[in-house]
Order: sequence, then C-alpha cells, then structure tokens
Amino acid sequence: MGRKRVTNYGVGEVGRWVSLTPTSRLFRRGWKVSAGCDGASLAGFVVQGSNGEFPLLTSSERLEVVSRVRQATSKDKLLLAGSGCESTQATVEMTLSMAQVGADAAMVVTPCYYRGRMSSAALIHHYTKVADLSPIPVVLYSVPANTGLDLPVDAVVTLSQHPNIVGIKDSGGDVTRIGLIVHKTRRQDFHVLAGSAGFLLAGYAVGAVGGICALANVLGAQVCQLERLCLTGQWEDAQKLQHRLIEPNTAVSSQPLAPKSGGVCVLIGAGAREGTGVPTQALPCQKVPLENIPGWELLVPPQKILTSDKVTRRFGIPGLKKTMDWFGYYGGPCRAPLQELSPAEEEALRMDFTSNGWL
Amino acid sequence: MGRKRVTNYGVGEVGRWVSLTPTSRLFRRGWKVSAGCDGASLAGFVVQGSNGEFPLLTSSERLEVVSRVRQATSKDKLLLAGSGCESTQATVEMTLSMAQVGADAAMVVTPCYYRGRMSSAALIHHYTKVADLSPIPVVLYSVPANTGLDLPVDAVVTLSQHPNIVGIKDSGGDVTRIGLIVHKTRRQDFHVLAGSAGFLLAGYAVGAVGGICALANVLGAQVCQLERLCLTGQWEDAQKLQHRLIEPNTAVSSQPLAPKSGGVCVLIGAGAREGTGVPTQALPCQKVPLENIPGWELLVPPQKILTSDKVTRRFGIPGLKKTMDWFGYYGGPCRAPLQELSPAEEEALRMDFTSNGWL
Amino acid sequence: MGRKRVTNYGVGEVGRWVSLTPTSRLFRRGWKVSAGCDGASLAGFVVQGSNGEFPLLTSSERLEVVSRVRQATSKDKLLLAGSGCESTQATVEMTLSMAQVGADAAMVVTPCYYRGRMSSAALIHHYTKVADLSPIPVVLYSVPANTGLDLPVDAVVTLSQHPNIVGIKDSGGDVTRIGLIVHKTRRQDFHVLAGSAGFLLAGYAVGAVGGICALANVLGAQVCQLERLCLTGQWEDAQKLQHRLIEPNTAVSSQPLAPKSGGVCVLIGAGAREGTGVPTQALPCQKVPLENIPGWELLVPPQKILTSDKVTRRFGIPGLKKTMDWFGYYGGPCRAPLQELSPAEEEALRMDFTSNGWL
Amino acid sequence: MGRKRVTNYGVGEVGRWVSLTPTSRLFRRGWKVSAGCDGASLAGFVVQGSNGEFPLLTSSERLEVVSRVRQATSKDKLLLAGSGCESTQATVEMTLSMAQVGADAAMVVTPCYYRGRMSSAALIHHYTKVADLSPIPVVLYSVPANTGLDLPVDAVVTLSQHPNIVGIKDSGGDVTRIGLIVHKTRRQDFHVLAGSAGFLLAGYAVGAVGGICALANVLGAQVCQLERLCLTGQWEDAQKLQHRLIEPNTAVSSQPLAPKSGGVCVLIGAGAREGTGVPTQALPCQKVPLENIPGWELLVPPQKILTSDKVTRRFGIPGLKKTMDWFGYYGGPCRAPLQELSPAEEEALRMDFTSNGWL
Repeated sequence: MGRKRVTNYGVGEVGRWVSLTPTSRLFRRGWKVSAGCDGASLAGFVVQGSNGEFPLLTSSERLEVVSRVRQATSKDKLLLAGSGCESTQATVEMTLSMAQVGADAAMVVTPCYYRGRMSSAALIHHYTKVADLSPIPVVLYSVPANTGLDLPVDAVVTLSQHPNIVGIKDSGGDVTRIGLIVHKTRRQDFHVLAGSAGFLLAGYAVGAVGGICALANVLGAQVCQLERLCLTGQWEDAQKLQHRLIEPNTAVSSQPLAPKSGGVCVLIGAGAREGTGVPTQALPCQKVPLENIPGWELLVPPQKILTSDKVTRRFGIPGLKKTMDWFGYYGGPCRAPLQELSPAEEEALRMDFTSNGWL
Repeated sequence: MGRKRVTNYGVGEVGRWVSLTPTSRLFRRGWKVSAGCDGASLAGFVVQGSNGEFPLLTSSERLEVVSRVRQATSKDKLLLAGSGCESTQATVEMTLSMAQVGADAAMVVTPCYYRGRMSSAALIHHYTKVADLSPIPVVLYSVPANTGLDLPVDAVVTLSQHPNIVGIKDSGGDVTRIGLIVHKTRRQDFHVLAGSAGFLLAGYAVGAVGGICALANVLGAQVCQLERLCLTGQWEDAQKLQHRLIEPNTAVSSQPLAPKSGGVCVLIGAGAREGTGVPTQALPCQKVPLENIPGWELLVPPQKILTSDKVTRRFGIPGLKKTMDWFGYYGGPCRAPLQELSPAEEEALRMDFTSNGWL
Repeated sequence: MGRKRVTNYGVGEVGRWVSLTPTSRLFRRGWKVSAGCDGASLAGFVVQGSNGEFPLLTSSERLEVVSRVRQATSKDKLLLAGSGCESTQATVEMTLSMAQVGADAAMVVTPCYYRGRMSSAALIHHYTKVADLSPIPVVLYSVPANTGLDLPVDAVVTLSQHPNIVGIKDSGGDVTRIGLIVHKTRRQDFHVLAGSAGFLLAGYAVGAVGGICALANVLGAQVCQLERLCLTGQWEDAQKLQHRLIEPNTAVSSQPLAPKSGGVCVLIGAGAREGTGVPTQALPCQKVPLENIPGWELLVPPQKILTSDKVTRRFGIPGLKKTMDWFGYYGGPCRAPLQELSPAEEEALRMDFTSNGWL
Repeated sequence: MGRKRVTNYGVGEVGRWVSLTPTSRLFRRGWKVSAGCDGASLAGFVVQGSNGEFPLLTSSERLEVVSRVRQATSKDKLLLAGSGCESTQATVEMTLSMAQVGADAAMVVTPCYYRGRMSSAALIHHYTKVADLSPIPVVLYSVPANTGLDLPVDAVVTLSQHPNIVGIKDSGGDVTRIGLIVHKTRRQDFHVLAGSAGFLLAGYAVGAVGGICALANVLGAQVCQLERLCLTGQWEDAQKLQHRLIEPNTAVSSQPLAPKSGGVCVLIGAGAREGTGVPTQALPCQKVPLENIPGWELLVPPQKILTSDKVTRRFGIPGLKKTMDWFGYYGGPCRAPLQELSPAEEEALRMDFTSNGWL
C-alpha cells in the first residue's frame, strides 16, 4: 500500500478491497480470507459502528467488546474498531487502547456536539492528531444521519494524504460525493467504503472498493452475493438483488446488535463490509459469555462472531435487533434511551422483509 | 408502452430510453434520432426545466419559448416542456397550451410554496388532475434543491400507474431512493431519469433509463459518451469520465441558458437527457431572433436548438450561462433577481473546468 | 416619517404603528381609525399574504381581489397588498398594477425558487429595483416556512435606508433576530411587524410596532385585545391572553381564506396587523359577488371585508378556512393543490380551540 | 415548591426565580442571595453546560470541576451541574456522582446521537429514569443547535409532572414554544428558563422565570441589569439594553470557558441565570489550581468562581474564551477538536462588542 503503513498494520485487510476489475488501481492483492461458512468470503468485523451502540457504552465496555470479539475471531479475520469520542484526547486514548486489545484498524467518527465549529480545519486537526498517534491505521467515518455533519470533501482529500489514514466509511448516501472523493483521492492509497447496503451497488459503480453494511447481520449472504455480482460485472442481476435489499436495509438502519440486556454492541460484517460473508441460514451458533460483564453473551457462529453495523433510517437499532431475532441470531434488547419497537413498528418492519421475499 | 398513450404521443421518445442490457424491460425500441452533429445521438430537448428560468418568465414568454424551440427543431427531436405552476388549475392550462404549441410531453415540477401541506395525497391529487386533462404524457419532476420538497416515493408509485404519467426526473441525487423507485415501479411502464450529470452513471447502475442533464449544454458530447459507456458495459471507462464531470456539473448547476438580456430560458438536452447529443466544438451556430419578444434571440446550432437544464449546486444559472459563453455558445445574461457571477466566483467556476481537463 | 414618502402614500397607516410607550421613537401620530365594529380598532387589511393563496391565483385574479377589497373598504382603512413574484420584472409590474387598483402599500415576499443564489446582494438588488419603481411604499416580507429563505439581517438593514421601503413583516418567529433588526434599523424610519399572533407579545416586547396576524380572521377581537394590553403595559394579562392564542394560532397557520370554490384569497387583518379589529361575534355578514370571476364571492361584514393572513404550522390554509366557518365567517374551499382537512385533522384543529376556551 | 422536593434540595434556588410581578404564580419567595460582588445579585453557578465543554471532558474531570466549583463557592450559592450523557445508565450514575460532590441540582441535556429514535416516549423514559433515581432535582435541557433535537413540548408537559423535575433550560430561541411550555405547565411547579441572553427579555415577557446565559461570563452586570429592568417593568430601558446585547451574545455563543490548556469548563452565571451577578470590572481575581489535574487552574474571583455557559451562534466557545480574556478574566485555550479563532474571526468578534459599546 505504498507509503501507508500496511506492512505493519495489515491495512490491506481492513476490507477485502476489491474494485470493478482486477486491473484497476483499487485492486488489492486479495487478502484471502478463509472463506466463511458455506463458502462465503468473510474478511472480518466492524465493532462499535453506530449500530454498535458505542455512545451508550462505557469506555471499559467498549474495550471489553473489542477484546471479546478479537478472542472469538480467528487471526485472519480483520477487526475494525470504532474508537471515536468527542474530544481529540479521548479519541487518541481510546484508539490506543483498542489497538492494545487487538483491533487491526480504528474507525473514527466525526466529533459532532460542537458541529457549529467543526470546520474543515478543526476536523483535519482532529484526525491528524489521532492518526499521528495511533499504532493502527485509521478509517474516517462520516455518518450525517447521526452526527448532523458531513466530513467535508476537502478535508477528506487532505487527510487522504496522511500515511496512517487509509480510507473512509461514508454513510451519507450521496453517490455524487462518493464519486468525487474517489476521484480526488485517486492518487492516494485511499479506500472509499459505502456505509450502507442501500447504495452498495451504486458505490461500487462509482469506485468504492467495499462497504460496511449493517444489513449483513441479517442478510449477510445476500450482501456477499451483491458484492460478487458487482465484481464480476453481472450488473443486471446485481441491480435486481440491490433493489430487493433497499427496503429491508432502510428498515433496520441505524444501530448495532447487542448481546444481553443492556444493549451492548458489536457487529460487524464480513470484510470491512460487514456481511460480505455471514450466511443467514444453517449457522450452528453457540453463545459465548462475556466474562467480565455478567449476563452478557455474544452470539457466535462457529469460529466467527456475528456481524453488524447498520444505519437504519426507520427502525434503527431496535429494528436491527428484532430482525436478528427473526433470522435466528441473537439481537437482544436495546440499551436505554433506545426503546423497543411498538407492535405497529414491528409489523411495518416485518413487511419490509416479507414484501421483498426475505421472510 | 402498454396502456400508456404511447401511440398518440410518442412517449417512448421522451428520452432515448435505454437500459443496461437490450433485453431488460426498460429497453425501448431505440427511437432512432437522426444523429446529432458529429454523430452524436440527439433525442430531443427539455425546455423550461429549473435551468430554463421558468419561474422568471411570464406565461406568454413560456409558451413563446416552447413554440420557438419547436419551430427550430426537426420533428424527430422530442420536445419536453416544463409546464409546472403552483396551482393545479394553472398547471393544467399551461400544459394544454404547451401541447398546442408543439410540446411532445410535459415535465411537471412539484408545487412547493405551501410545502407544509404538500402531502402525498395532495400531490397525487395534483398530478392526477394534470395527467387526466393533459393531451400529452406527463413526466414528474422532483427537484428538492429548488422546491425544498421531495416527491414521496409512495406518491411516485401510485402515480406511476396513471396511463398518462410516463416517468420521473429525479434531481435529488439520492441513489438509494432512485433504486427504490425503479424497483417499486418495475411492473409499470415508468421511466426513471437521473436529473443531473453528477449521478448519471450511478443512476444507470440502479436502473434509471436516461438523464436530463444541464451539463450537456456545455459538455454535451461528453455526457453522450458517458451514456454510451454505461450502455455498452464499459464501466471502468465510464467511471473515469463520470469522475471528471462531477465538479463541472456541480459548478454550473441550477439554471437555464437564456437568449438575450432578460434571461429567458430554454434548454434542454439531447434526449430527455439533455446533452446526449450536443457536440461542444465546431458547431456552426446561428442566431435565430425571437419575433414576439424584441431583442430576444436563441442561439441555434444548424437545425437544432442549444440544450440545457442544469441544477448547479454552486453557481447555478449564472454559472451555466458563463460556461456556455466560454464554450462558444450563447449563454447571455440572467434575469433578475438572479445576478451575474462575481470575478471570484467566475474564477472558481473556471477552475472546476480546467482542473478536470475541460478548459 | 422623515424622508420616507409618507405624505403621498400614508405610510404611517400601513399599520397602526405603536410602540411600548407614547414617547418612543416608534410612536406614530396615532392614525386614528374609525373604530371597527363593536369598538374594535381596525386599521386596515392585508390582501395576498401567504394565507391569501397568492401563488395559486392568476395575475388578473390577484388584481381583482385587491380591487374588490378596495371597493369594499372605506378609505380610512389601509390596504396592504402582497405583490411579490419570482422575477424582479414581474414584481415591479404587479406592484404598479396593485397601486393602480387602490393598494396603499405593497408587501413583497422574497423570491425563493432559486434560493441557492438569493444572496444578500441579489435580494438587495431585487427590492431596490421594486422600491425604486413603486408608486407606493414597500414592506419587506420574510416567511421562511414557505420560502425556505430568511431575508438576511444585513440585507434588511441596507434596505431600511431606502426612502420607499418602510418596514418588514417577519414571520420567522426568531425573536432574537427581530430584536436585532429593530436595533440596527433604529435610526431609520423602519417598522418591524410580527408576522404571526404566536409571538406578537414577544415582538412588542423587543420593539416591533405591530403585527400581521392571520389568527385575526377568527379571533380578531382577541388579537386586538392582546395589542392593547401590550400597549398599556398590562403585561401580566397580556401574557395570559397570549398563552391561550398560541395553539389556535399554530393550528390555523399558513393560509388565506378564500371566497368561492377555487380558493381565492384575501384576508387581512385590522391594521397591517390583521385582526386588530375584527370582532368575532354578532357580525351581520353579506356576500358580495365578484363580478368578473363567475361564482366567486367575498364574505363581507357590513362595510368591511373579512380579514386574514395566517401562517399555520399545522393545518395551514385549510385549517384557517375551517375555523372561519366555525366562527360564522365564510372560509370556503381551498384551491388545489391544497386539500381539505381530513376528519382526524379537523378534530385536532377543533381541540386546539376548545382546549384554550375559544370554542 | 408544592410537591416537588424543594425542602430537601432547595429547588427554589436553582434560579432566583422571578416573575413579571410579585403576585403572579411564578413568583418565588425571593431566595435572597447574598449579593454578589459590587452589589450584583448572584444566585449561583451552572457548571457543564454546553459552554462548559462537557463532552470534551472525562467523567472524572467532570466531577473534579463540580467539586472544585463547590469548594470555591459559598453555600448560599446554588450549583447547577450538567450531568447528561448519551446513555440513561451513564446519566443516572453521573447525576448521582455530581450530587455527591456538591451539586444542588442536575441539568440534563437530551441524548442526541440516535436522534432518529429519540421520540417523546424514549425521552420521557430517559428523564423519568434519571429523575426517579436522582437525589437532587433535575432541570431539562434542550439545545437544538448542538443536539439537532428539540425536546418535544408534549414530553416537557408530561415530565413537568414528575416531582423531581423542576424546570427546563430552553436554548432553542423559539419564543412561541417557550410561551406554550409556560402555558401548558402552568399548573405544575415548573420553571422555564431562557437559555441565552439573546432572548432573555422576550423570555421574561412570555413567562420564563430566569435565564441561563453564557454572556454573563463577560457582561455579567449587564445581564443582571437586564433582569432587573424586566422585573421592575422598565420595559423601554430593558429593550434598549437587550438590543445592545444581541450581537455580543451571538458572537460568543456555544461554549464554555475553561481554565488552562486542555479546555476545562465551568461557568455559570448568577442564579440559574448565569451572569445575574458577575460584575465585569474591578474583580480582583486569583487563580486556584486544580490539584488532581496538573496544570489546570480555575480563575476565581474572590470567593466565587467565574461564571458562564453561553451558546454562541458564531464563534462559540473559542469566542467566549477570547472575550473573557479581553474583559480581564481567564478564558484560556480550547480543548481539541475546538480550535482557536483565526485573526479574521477575532476581528469580527471584537466588532460585535465595540459596535454595541462594550469594548
């Protein structure tokens, strides 16, 4: 990965970076992952994205989850951990700690409480500081639905030149913007990831090299299939599959799946793209108790942790958890102030899946 | 076009509808247009889109422009005219009048002043009334940057079943939404058109069958080329070209080109996609005076009118006009309250073209 | 009114300008109006505000309404007519025409379709042009709920220096902004009017000298009373009354009352502040047919026209019309695309009035 | 305070609650504070409002600051501490801890990261849980500029009935909403506080009983004077003073003042209304080192801590700190990611003070 610190940190594996054709600049050496169950390709996990309920966890809980996922995951699976906090100092410290407990790379959400002052200059300063001090590569994370803030394109372009900043997860859904970021960072070794399954196909079409898709927690094999169809140029089939995933994705967007009551976290996805490898059926699962947090437990398919990180526009984290239950995984309760779905909401959620043939 | 009134109104030609493969449901019989100059395929023109400054024209001026463009255009070119007004009654009347002066189809923008009351029900009522009474097919037009209002997906789906509503120009740029509209109208003969060159490739990728792109006024051949690359599956080259068009497109978005001082209107694009056929060089042009409006004149390349309709996010109509001047066309002054660009704005505008190799 | 053209146009009467104390700079000579019915003070009418459905009328209808209201109104009642259009040229022409049919002053809403280009410079240009050419004084009109655009404070300050611009109707509800405008125009003869009954008391408190309140169409006497309480320093009673008016005001905001099917327009308010003088009970009414528009009719209480212009945040024009019916006036149907209220909406509307003791 | 737990927690002193007249329902028994320095009336302090940079502090730092301010403040000064966190559980724990270190009441900001799911029901659940478990009274805190979220009026009304929820700091600036909240909670012992000096006068006019105003950190005496003018019915003078405070207030809004590099926090204001008692001149100050946080120090006027908590719309926390330096206090550096002002920003900031006669 050129001047990026790939050798040390295995940046190449943040996702199973792929591009539209094997010869494009974005093609990665493949980072062969031991195929997931049923032959699905699984690259790794994202922990503590927005759907991981990270703002609702204590610092120690955040580290606990990363540590547990690391232990439950084979070494050839990448572990991308969300380490963003409001202050620069806290983000630096959290990133360091997450690296210590086994994260392969850090995904850093934009600070947002003082959004009125979060100019490009302030954000560049923030990320530069974090990346300077982080022992692991940094992935930028822009999720305006939660933060009310888009990481400005000019800031992304500047930051893409930092040797320890390797990509961006863009959950905003503006494909023109995504295309522009790809274009303006084309001379950097910088990876643009679609932040939702809703525009995964379009993201690939304009040059994204992967996705981090919460929907993979429930329809993992389908998200994997969508990726493969894009990569192999089967656009017509890809289009049909993409279409059927939009409503389910919208329905379960904006949250994490959590073990146990208290709404913990976790989730990830195969590859930086969550869900590029988690089959939805026939997964013999086992529950792995989290020791230090009494009562917690992570649902873990054999040799891998369950995945997730989804930004639902409608039912959010409660919706994601509910569908995980439906699909035979463990969603579990939300952590307050998030509330469970009402019966009417649950009905509407189910409809988004049944009307597209997934339930 | 099934139960749509295609025979009478040639709806199929609203754009040179194309899809990703010749066998898909969206494929149209090709509606062969006499190739534009230099072999570019030109389908027709859009008059009185947002870049046509339609809200700044009087009713008689709006009709005058349509009439003039009709006269200046060969019959095998489609003429799509923007007939939207705030009131349902006025829209019906304007649509009727535009049909009388030669429009082949009507593009109807959402009413927006009372946006707080523009529920799906109100909008369905509005469009149904217009479509019921219109002698020509109706194309929905959603352009939230100007109207502050998205035509809701459920309203689009309902309206797609109307026999005289044949498609939508969606300028919002939310490709997830565009994909969902394509998906949910897949059983209708309903055409989804990308409303800007900024997301034309992504639009095709998720099932749009054309575009109405203001950028075609200045980079018409390039927009045509982008379409062809998409249609022939040359996605890698398409991606590169798309990337270079994003900044110029953004720079000149949101207005029309107008003949003469007073900022009139016009513009269109080859095909419903403006600009699928307007070469940028070597176009021998001639000025065609508008009789009834002293001093007006339309810049008309031999046998065709110049095109346009662009939603610029930065310099808008003044930016579009300025670049048209640069490219050898006639942009002309804006109509107040629109103002000319400042020198600094002009400089920034130029940069967006030069940095991408277009000037 | 100093250098303003008050002598000619009676600007002082645009509203019964008042200030908190008789000695402040804002005090006007009182412009004694012949008290409205039942002793209520009535200053005049506003025609074609947002609640007048002006965007839904044709140009000739707009003039017709002004003309009719002028004829139905005694000369000592001020007639303030909304003459704004999207283009500067059309606004100039409409203002001229309205002056010809009897308007005493023109209220000019900000153009908004090209809001992305409506910089302070563009808006200053627009209003300056209109004011330069208008034979009657101009009142600025900022109503972001409809236009998506606030007339910037710096533009207001600059425009306040124009000899033919005499005030602003600010419907945005940001009382900090209203106070700042009062402060920065304090050396001009410039009148700031609260654009809604929801913040009329607060407006007076920070220096506004009147209001244009749609609620006066149904609770005119109460709005008059609120004004008097503010003017006489009875703030405690004023506060109680203000509180009871907030929900009804919110419920009926954003539209006009219209005679006849087709939703015409009109409405006004006593004084530039609508409703400073329209009693709500015991008004013997008579219908006055509009000649040129078959079927139209204006409900006219003896010797005065009914009032209105209200920006409802919830039920808008349909809500205002419905409540007018309840109060014994003629609200009538809306003009499409506005739709009638659903039974559930009507129920909620009624609740906002009954829970505050007005029905 | 009726059924509220005032006896135990001295809720009455959260602010020096006052109303427009001594006989109104809002009148409090006066809670006489020992007059601040120079005779200014000082009610107490708010620590960890938005200007206290609370999201940028660690949990232990937040407690440290509260503890220090408590120690530096005489017992007859109220200490209101911001204890809000994203999760309900963390908020409960922080509130408990703040009570233990001496806070008299807790101010709880709305959680906001998952704003898409923060329905009235979720927020009611959150605040009820916190208030149930808090040993000290709770003040709701709505600050949409930072959170992108208004605490819905219906939720406020429901929560006002909780025996341990005593009021709301509303920083949104919508005076219609503030009036409605006062109206609908009039039968509760519930105190509405204006969250900014920009609309303090208007707030009093519609029934607010105090304010929490960051501007008091630099123009404390003036904010006190504004309160007194409102309370004594000198509305004309109040209006003039209010006008001169709007621009300075806007300029320094949205942040805290912090001692030492690292940007700590603190600030408050006299009374729940910050600044009702902090004179701006001639304050002999002394720096009080914070022991546990090496290098920290709080600027403390004799026997009291400096005040603040201001929501600047333009220069935010950096602007507030800078003006504190100008006025002879200690503002100090911001904590990252907040950045210092640029020279141009500093110039504009100064202009807002000089043009109103404060510098």
